[in-house]
Amino acid sequence: MTVAPRNEPLRFRDLAEVAEAVRRDGGRLSMARRLVLEALFAADALVSAEQIAAGAHTGTAIEIASVYRNLERLEELGVVRHVHLGHGPGLYGLVGDGEREYLVCEGCGRVTAADPARLDRARAAIRADLGYEARFTHFPIHGLCDDCAPAERRR
Amino acid sequence: MTVAPRNEPLRFRDLAEVAEAVRRDGGRLSMARRLVLEALFAADALVSAEQIAAGAHTGTAIEIASVYRNLERLEELGVVRHVHLGHGPGLYGLVGDGEREYLVCEGCGRVTAADPARLDRARAAIRADLGYEARFTHFPIHGLCDDCAPAERRR
Repeated sequence: MTVAPRNEPLRFRDLAEVAEAVRRDGGRLSMARRLVLEALFAADALVSAEQIAAGAHTGTAIEIASVYRNLERLEELGVVRHVHLGHGPGLYGLVGDGEREYLVCEGCGRVTAADPARLDRARAAIRADLGYEARFTHFPIHGLCDDCAPAERRR
Repeated sequence: MTVAPRNEPLRFRDLAEVAEAVRRDGGRLSMARRLVLEALFAADALVSAEQIAAGAHTGTAIEIASVYRNLERLEELGVVRHVHLGHGPGLYGLVGDGEREYLVCEGCGRVTAADPARLDRARAAIRADLGYEARFTHFPIHGLCDDCAPAERRR
């Protein structure tokens, strides 16, 4: 399975800090919302709503509709973000101190999380040649990684 | 709605040419497959499987499962390709003489189809800086177009 490493420092240290931020924004920390957040803190990679609903990280299952509702609201509050790594469902994670952009290998499924600065030259080329301000935080770059690209060329 | 223009010359001129290619490859041109192809020839943009199933371009509805099955097989035969332009379903089109890569504006939903050569500099930068051989034919570049990016910066 394709998983994205969570290699960025989180914006919130623990559940209490998120709870405080959610409360400041007028949001409640219902039991379902608490379980969603616990799952996100427990996971060491980005997770799907289905995994959270199944209780994969907390041992407690929740209604899938409730998971999606809470993820959406937490995203509006700036606590959660999601990324689409391919044909599958979106993957969710806690917002970190620094944004990450993603590259997905269509050969081996490897996911690379990159500091946005590493894509600045590509972004400048896209801006100059096509007039687009590209960002790869939500929909990543697809292609072949440096292991798979040479193998493809040899075929 | 987000639509991608079909601005490339097609590899097959008409249904008879596709039928011939499908037959050479050992495939049959069942009624469902014929309707799928007729829809693709009639559409002036990429279309979803749902639109084909609803008979949007032919006036004849087909089972959605049959549409997906036929699209998959036609894709294996090199007649059809698909692209994911965002959160929605994949969009299908006939394979053209030249591949196109796509950019999607997350502001206004505009889709730009680009000749791959126009992304060569971006591709070179991604190769040099991250070791990936990027392609934007199946999963496009997301960002803000030249109308929306300045508006975003002003906010």
